Order: sequence, then structure tokens, then C-alpha cells
Amino acid sequence: MKEAVIGIDIGGTFTKYGVIDREGNCMAESFTNTTTHYNFDDYLKDLYDAIEKNMQFLKGQVEIKGVGIGAPNGNYYAGTIENAVNLNWRGIIPVSEKMKKYYPGLTIALTNDANAAAIGEMVFGGAKDMKDFIVITLGTGLGSGIVVNGDLVYGQDGFAGELGHINAHLNGRDCGCGRKGCLEAYASASGIRRTVFWLLAERMIDSELREVNFNDLTAKMISEAALRGDKIALEAFDYTGWILGSKLADTVAHNSPEAIFLLGGLANSRELIINPTKKYMEENLLPIYRNKVKILLSSLPDMNAGVLGAGALAWNELRRL
Amino acid sequence: MKEAVIGIDIGGTFTKYGVIDREGNCMAESFTNTTTHYNFDDYLKDLYDAIEKNMQFLKGQVEIKGVGIGAPNGNYYAGTIENAVNLNWRGIIPVSEKMKKYYPGLTIALTNDANAAAIGEMVFGGAKDMKDFIVITLGTGLGSGIVVNGDLVYGQDGFAGELGHINAHLNGRDCGCGRKGCLEAYASASGIRRTVFWLLAERMIDSELREVNFNDLTAKMISEAALRGDKIALEAFDYTGWILGSKLADTVAHNSPEAIFLLGGLANSRELIINPTKKYMEENLLPIYRNKVKILLSSLPDMNAGVLGAGALAWNELRRL
Repeated sequence: MKEAVIGIDIGGTFTKYGVIDREGNCMAESFTNTTTHYNFDDYLKDLYDAIEKNMQFLKGQVEIKGVGIGAPNGNYYAGTIENAVNLNWRGIIPVSEKMKKYYPGLTIALTNDANAAAIGEMVFGGAKDMKDFIVITLGTGLGSGIVVNGDLVYGQDGFAGELGHINAHLNGRDCGCGRKGCLEAYASASGIRRTVFWLLAERMIDSELREVNFNDLTAKMISEAALRGDKIALEAFDYTGWILGSKLADTVAHNSPEAIFLLGGLANSRELIINPTKKYMEENLLPIYRNKVKILLSSLPDMNAGVLGAGALAWNELRRL
Repeated sequence: MKEAVIGIDIGGTFTKYGVIDREGNCMAESFTNTTTHYNFDDYLKDLYDAIEKNMQFLKGQVEIKGVGIGAPNGNYYAGTIENAVNLNWRGIIPVSEKMKKYYPGLTIALTNDANAAAIGEMVFGGAKDMKDFIVITLGTGLGSGIVVNGDLVYGQDGFAGELGHINAHLNGRDCGCGRKGCLEAYASASGIRRTVFWLLAERMIDSELREVNFNDLTAKMISEAALRGDKIALEAFDYTGWILGSKLADTVAHNSPEAIFLLGGLANSRELIINPTKKYMEENLLPIYRNKVKILLSSLPDMNAGVLGAGALAWNELRRL
């Protein structure tokens, strides 16, 4: 019987899940809605039922060895989701403990979504042969998973690796965390949208983005405008790359990683974001680090990177046993 | 026979060394001059002879198991000193390899001085029970040793942990590395001296420091003036703590350490530097990290912290074998 794990990616809107073998093949994949349940126990029961139903066809072929979960504010040490502002469940939710009732005897592990992406990159992706690297997710916010000496950096409390909240600008833009000037207020799919609106105010040049209102604007639209040569869109990418690249230079001074992988909505702009980020990172590096650190696109498919990451977390735990 | 290691701390001016037992007791300690030798081989021969002579009285009582070396720009992976601007020897010096000829069969390890201090703190000092912490040396420059999951962070190239060169001020003060605005241009014994001179220019209030020229001014004098209530000196400590504390908040967002230890010249000002650093770090922390991270004085004696650190490095290597 083939061995596999279940990977669960709890997002603000959808919960995606899949059955992942040791090579990273996803044998059954589907999703449920995260927002419909205000009671976590009800959510978990429905999720379990949905998973069971969807993997029915694998019975007898696959032996499930563990369950990996990626979630916002997921705490690896405690197996909890703690005060996640984009989920319905308040306070501290003992997810792993509750999950054990549905999967008795199995290895269950939970971490935050960006950490899961980093483990996914290490186990199944472009970081297979790396011991020191960083994954940056550029979505609504900026998430990060840091790997040092082949292990995820969790710190004393399980919450290490919040690069979205290092300071990028003294008294800068409001951040969702209640402070000002955090990196994710600039370098994220939402951040570049804010940068476009700031540039539309600063500059007097034409731009197709002057026809779009704030709420309708997406990173994809900015990317498409840039590819058509729109000067505001191009400057927005340059500015975003400057902020991100110069801050990543400081991160390199901490960890000297072999590579930094970009993933998520804004990373889909590919060279538009990679090139200025790399350029400004190099310009700001201490000489000993220059021309050593790769900026790469994640090799995990964006669509199910979360599920693969969660599955990789479970496999990684099983390996350590 | 008692087991011990030799710890060697190569500094810009002096090379200190000692025989260190497993408990961190220093049984023989002395120093030579680093600056008198322009040829590394000559330096090493004289150093070896001096060590042999000084530990003559321990023969028959002590069995030397290894040699640990802390040095500026020391590369742990390669056992080399690489392009150290404050030493006479240019280029890449294969220190461990050359040392092997004098100590055949022994474990020999080399790292940079701040990393050695961090290992000293872990093996003999205040971080004995910690797996995630950082040591910051505040001397002429700012050095750092970062420990994650109980291991030093070396990164892909052996040069991780250069927090002295993260950016503290866009287009700020000239730094010895050739760039501008690096943290060590503000937060170090030299940095606070520059801050005093900047404040003497900015402010019109009296200060005993108006009687001192730049070259004569020391961190100790600033510290003594502050203790006497000198307003310029007090503001200089506040400003230094603001820069250091706000940057350490970003470092916490990387690693979430249990403690940050301060060591070296400026750390001897104790509460004068600890208090504002702690205050501004807390003010700049993401809420989940608040009131969790200790700012502590190193518990290694400043006088031989380098030698103890180098000895701890050797013991740590022996433990890993």
C-alpha cells in the first residue's frame, strides 16, 4: 500500500486539502469554504467529512501516515491557531489536539502558511538541496518562512519569521497590525496597489491606471499595464523592488541564505518584481554577500502550494521521528 | 588527567589566549601583540611558542583536546581569516590548516569573534539553557552571533550575522565598510561618540563634553558624564538606544529569540544603554513579540570573553564529534 499524508491549507476564504505522496504528487485535492463556520468544532467535523468523502476512491490503495496543516497565525510548537484576524475563530484554537480525535495515532503537525510554503519548497520544490533559504509570500500581506541549517526557524515562541512586519519606512503607511511603515504595506499585492495610487498622486504623466478605482485595482492589472509599458505601473514595480530588495539585504546580513524564493499573487508578475528586487538587494548588500544570493520564483505551483507545503510539513515530521 | 582546550582570541591589537577546562575555568591566560607581525607564519610560530611556554606549568596535569580560535572575518566553514581590514595579513589566511601543524590530531575550529562570544554565552554564560538567542558586541564596531535551534547561524558562506551592517538610516553616516547608514555607525562605542558630536552641533545646552576633542572622547567618558546628569550624554544614550532598539525589533521579527545579550565597550555602560534599547525595542515590536524578549548584559567577563568564547567553540566542536 502506498504511503501518503493529508495536507490542509486553511485560508481566510477557502480551506484546500489534498492527499500527498512522498514524491509530492497530489492524489486527491478539493476545498471547502472557511468562512461559513463560526464554530471551529463544526468546521472541523465538516472538513473531516469532506476529506473522507473525497479520498474514498483511494481506500485500500493508500495508507495515511500523517496530517499537516498550514494556517494563518499557526503556532508549530503548540499546534494552535492564535488570534488570527482573518479567520472567524477568536482566541487560541487547539487545532492539532482537536484534529487528533479524527486521526488517532497519526502524526499531526501545524504551522503558519508561509512556514508551510518554505517546508514545501525544501521537501518538494526548488530548495531540495539547500540548508539556508527563505520563502517570501507576496499576497494580501507579506509572509515568510526562514530555514537555517536545514530547519525552520520558529524561535522561542513558534512565531519567528514575520518579515512582513519589519520596518520599511519610519512613520510610513498604516499597516493591518496597527503600526506604521511595515514592509508588507509596501511589498505585497496590496502594497503595490497603494504605491500605484501614491504615484498617481505624485506624477502628472498619463496612465491607464487613472481609469481604475482603488477597490477594483489588482496586482494583475498593474502587471499587465507594466507589460504594455505604462510608466506608473513600471515605476510602481521599481519602487516595490527597491523597498523589498533593500530590506532583503538586511535579511541577508542576518542569515546569509543561498536563495530567497518569491511566491503568491505579486510573484506572478515574475521578472517585473524579481528584477528590481534583485537589483536593489545587490546595491544594498555588504560586499561579502554580493552576487551570492539567488532571488527565485517558487517552484511550487501557486494554486496548491499551500496544500503541498502542509503535506511537506507532515512528511518532514515523519522523517524526524 | 584533566581535559582542556586552548582558546585563542585574535584581536586587532592583542592576541589573547588561555587554557579552558570543560566548566569554563581559565587555567593559564596571557597575550601577545598582533600588530608586530606582518608575516602570518612568523606570527603563528611566535604565538605557539608563547602558548607552550605559558602552559608549561600545566604539563602532566592537563590533556589538550582541541583549539578554538575567534578572529575578525573568521570563516567557520573554511577555517580562514578573510580580508580582515584591521589585521596586517591581506587576503585569505588558512589559519586552521596552518594551526594543524602545531597541534596535529587535535580538533581545531575557527569563527569570527562575535560568533565565538555567542558560543561562549551558550556553553559557559547566561544562555546555557537557551536555544534561540543573539549576542551583540558593542565595541569599535557592532558584531553579532545568532543562535537558532541551539546552533550558530553561519549561512551558505560562513558569514551570516553581520547585524552591524543592516541599514539604520537611509543615506546616513559613513561606515567603515564603504556604505552609508549602517547600524554600527550609530550603535557602537564609536557610534555614540559620533552621536555626541552631532548633538553638540545640534543643541545649545551646556555639556562637559564640549571640553573634549573628538579623538580623545571615549564611550567611558560619555557614560561617566551621563551618570553625572550631563544632558548631551544622556540624549546620546537615548538616541543610541532608539536606533539599536528599533533595529533589534526587526531582528526579533526574523528569529524571535529568547534573549539578546550585549557585550563590549558600550555594554559596560550597563543600564544607560540597556534601558533605552529595551524601551525602544518594545515600542517597535509586533504585538505578538512584546514582553517576551530579554535584553541582558553578557555574563562572560568582558576581559576574557573572547578567550572563553574561543574555548567554548572548541568544546562545542568536541561535543559534536
